[in-house]
Amino acid sequence: MTDTSKSLEMHPQGWGDPAAATPLPESARGLIELAFGVDRRPAVDHVELPASGLAPGLLDGLRELLGDEHVLADDATRRLRTRGKSTPDLLKARAGDLSDAPDAVVRPDGHDQVAAVLAYAVEHHLAVVPFGGGTSVTGGLAARREGYAGLISLDLIRMKRLLSVDQVSMTATLEPGLRGPEAEALLAEQGLTLGHYPQSFEFATIGGFAATRSSGQSSAGYGRFDALVMGLRVATPRGEMVLGSSPANAAGPDLRQLLLGSEGTFGVITAVTVRVRRLPAVKVYEGWRWPSFVEGAAAMRHLAQAGLLPTVLRLSDEAETSINLARPDAIGGESAGGCMMIAGYEGDPEIVEARRSVVTAILTGLGGENLGEEPGQSWAHGRFNAPYLRDALLDAGVLVETLETVTFWSNTDRLYADVKAALEASLGEGTIVLCHLSHVYETGCSLYFTVAAKQGDDPLGQWLDAKAAASDAIIDAGASITHHHAVGTDHKPWLAQEIGPLGVSVLRAVKADLDPTGILNPGVLIP
Amino acid sequence: MTDTSKSLEMHPQGWGDPAAATPLPESARGLIELAFGVDRRPAVDHVELPASGLAPGLLDGLRELLGDEHVLADDATRRLRTRGKSTPDLLKARAGDLSDAPDAVVRPDGHDQVAAVLAYAVEHHLAVVPFGGGTSVTGGLAARREGYAGLISLDLIRMKRLLSVDQVSMTATLEPGLRGPEAEALLAEQGLTLGHYPQSFEFATIGGFAATRSSGQSSAGYGRFDALVMGLRVATPRGEMVLGSSPANAAGPDLRQLLLGSEGTFGVITAVTVRVRRLPAVKVYEGWRWPSFVEGAAAMRHLAQAGLLPTVLRLSDEAETSINLARPDAIGGESAGGCMMIAGYEGDPEIVEARRSVVTAILTGLGGENLGEEPGQSWAHGRFNAPYLRDALLDAGVLVETLETVTFWSNTDRLYADVKAALEASLGEGTIVLCHLSHVYETGCSLYFTVAAKQGDDPLGQWLDAKAAASDAIIDAGASITHHHAVGTDHKPWLAQEIGPLGVSVLRAVKADLDPTGILNPGVLIP
Repeated sequence: MTDTSKSLEMHPQGWGDPAAATPLPESARGLIELAFGVDRRPAVDHVELPASGLAPGLLDGLRELLGDEHVLADDATRRLRTRGKSTPDLLKARAGDLSDAPDAVVRPDGHDQVAAVLAYAVEHHLAVVPFGGGTSVTGGLAARREGYAGLISLDLIRMKRLLSVDQVSMTATLEPGLRGPEAEALLAEQGLTLGHYPQSFEFATIGGFAATRSSGQSSAGYGRFDALVMGLRVATPRGEMVLGSSPANAAGPDLRQLLLGSEGTFGVITAVTVRVRRLPAVKVYEGWRWPSFVEGAAAMRHLAQAGLLPTVLRLSDEAETSINLARPDAIGGESAGGCMMIAGYEGDPEIVEARRSVVTAILTGLGGENLGEEPGQSWAHGRFNAPYLRDALLDAGVLVETLETVTFWSNTDRLYADVKAALEASLGEGTIVLCHLSHVYETGCSLYFTVAAKQGDDPLGQWLDAKAAASDAIIDAGASITHHHAVGTDHKPWLAQEIGPLGVSVLRAVKADLDPTGILNPGVLIP
Repeated sequence: MTDTSKSLEMHPQGWGDPAAATPLPESARGLIELAFGVDRRPAVDHVELPASGLAPGLLDGLRELLGDEHVLADDATRRLRTRGKSTPDLLKARAGDLSDAPDAVVRPDGHDQVAAVLAYAVEHHLAVVPFGGGTSVTGGLAARREGYAGLISLDLIRMKRLLSVDQVSMTATLEPGLRGPEAEALLAEQGLTLGHYPQSFEFATIGGFAATRSSGQSSAGYGRFDALVMGLRVATPRGEMVLGSSPANAAGPDLRQLLLGSEGTFGVITAVTVRVRRLPAVKVYEGWRWPSFVEGAAAMRHLAQAGLLPTVLRLSDEAETSINLARPDAIGGESAGGCMMIAGYEGDPEIVEARRSVVTAILTGLGGENLGEEPGQSWAHGRFNAPYLRDALLDAGVLVETLETVTFWSNTDRLYADVKAALEASLGEGTIVLCHLSHVYETGCSLYFTVAAKQGDDPLGQWLDAKAAASDAIIDAGASITHHHAVGTDHKPWLAQEIGPLGVSVLRAVKADLDPTGILNPGVLIP
């Protein structure tokens, strides 16, 4: 289990715990310099925050609501609540650009205080940015401030309670500020688990998972976060919404699915009731080698459509397999070729054994080569570490970022080829594009791309152009602009194409209804 | 497989094919007369339809759009498009009250003609009631006509195509007017099945399943209809919506789940892309006897939470077991006592055998007695017939109706007791209340009640009072007003309580956005 004592504040110019920063192994450094040349692009040391633009009277008003110690306007706190963790966010932070810093950070403790902050924000026309783990990679924290009396970060860091557990129904109600490991630790005391492990697990929060329709690395076994949510309590500028009378029903549209994915623009999620499972007694992760990406993908589809998915199932393409991002220490080492698949099983021993034996027979029959547990353990060990590597690569002058999409099975080959081609065409010769399939469904799967290129003079512009080209390719292929990274500000133009003018109109109508003065995350999500 | 040659028009005063009407077996008749006394309440023979209130110019306009033969205002057609099939609907029809008859029935052929009808309806302020199978049991077809230039039934009977099949992604795109057996027959030609078998299967349509969030008797294996839907095409008064870029994604709120369950109030569903499965090679249904309802329910919960559900799983309480509604010929026969469970398995032989053997071991260990396949076959044979029995009972002076709800497992005992008590208190001594659990989830299940009482002088008022009492009990218990019957006009007051004032406000905002002049199913769904 992850160490929950890790620093709760991420590096202001990079990913995660500053103490856990991962330097590039020497073997990798040599290879990277070979591929991209010798370059050094260190982050600037001294950064200047714009002064808080909040009128002192407004700060005082907020302090009356929450107490002095829970309304912070100092530079260090504001800096740590500036933007998220996309490569564009990091490039700006590394260059010393903190122009999106909030004017103040407020830390309500509970639903009623959140509601009070929202009422105050409506009264004084303050923009409010709900803040959970700060791990957005789509500009979800970069709200518009023009036209507002100020912008405040509504930090949910004090809302970390396990509110209730129902061992009969196997549900638990959690506060939104609980980070992944904190939620798992509280549930583990009751013998339970949520089983939600996105790459941002160590820092991202329950509220963020819900607000962005997160999906974890064990989604094949435990389900997407939106499938885990049974109920929501939401504070909106017009009052409280409590949704979730039952597992499922026919009582009109499922309004839970309208609040899930609303990215803080309709309301602030103050409690989430989730389906939980018994802590698995056994966790086994194995590696499989496939001759090709196409054959590995066909095997994944076979398992999904036979209803025989393991708990974890992911497949790297040839390029990603040869680099093995989960093991930076092995970069530059030998690859046996082909494509690496990880299949993981969690649960009671007899269930794990039964599923593993059926899956093993099927995969073997389809041409997979079982590599045993070593590659699986290696993946499990490094599963949350890739973002640290990005910081070291940015230092070394490499532009590196990820993007993801999802489509139906019959469209995966085209989508894979088109996105890869768009990225390579935009970023030029020497660009490396890696891909893996994960988050497998009966009818389709997600494609997750990692891109590396030599940083030019304007790495930010360079990436924005490449990302736009990839996003165009995604929408042209009829796929979704995002499988689990959400929309934020970065994906808005493509969301508009994906859901069409009436889809946009509906989102605006709901926004106008629940947040009539538009104080919540202005400029985020809604085109 | 069901006989698809059955009449497509249901009995105007009862359920289903008039030729398939089921008289009460003599054994049952004796018992019923013993319980409720001798009474005869035949439906009236001669009924008078209100004249079509549509101005002749409007009829002509519609005929120009669709052709003369597809705009019908004759009494026989209008009568067959009047209301749905709830007991209140039947009591009114049996008494000769056809005051809700549409002014005309229009039959567009395809999305563009539906869009043209909606544009015409907006221009002339006609109320439009989308009509699929006509099987609503919640007043979903009884739209408000006051304030409109007329009310037209938009009958989807000509839209019965299988538009496309994707054998790789295992999806199919179907038109909304396909009835259950018609859709299954088209899919079976491709070796596929939808696996959606609600009790209304023989008459209800794909569009209706989507518009009402239907759930079928095999939902444990195939999933609820809303979980099967991958994509929707919808004609709204403001234009076309096309939703469903992927199996699942993080591209904002899931707007599919806003249109599913919208009951024709936001738009007319003109195509539905569904997940399909291979036709099962084997179907096995078995009976199990449990000493008590509580023990049987605990076993269902155990299977659901272990991830080991059969394809079909349902459990009758002691009262329902003793009556065995699926076999009216056996009414009055001997019951062995306890509670009857049906567990059904569908799929490839080895999958069925593996699941059956695991489930059998678990159920046996929990105290269930395996009764073999006879009770299962009996259930499967009679699974769509119960509604026919209602007509015979209404003739015999018995007030009979069903209602259903859903809650989390820890709340099922209270919900069961409270709803039963409310019905018995309202309908008085001698009332029979039967219940079964079906549609099992990890976190809860649905409760389906069948009620029988002696008809008084005002059976309609008698039932409305009882239904209100049961609905109050459902909402007081924190459960949902409907698991799969939808909202219609009958459940609106309780839906408002279930989703709260802001939930209602959001529904109204979406309605105002997509249907600004309010022509679609006015008075249905939205409180």
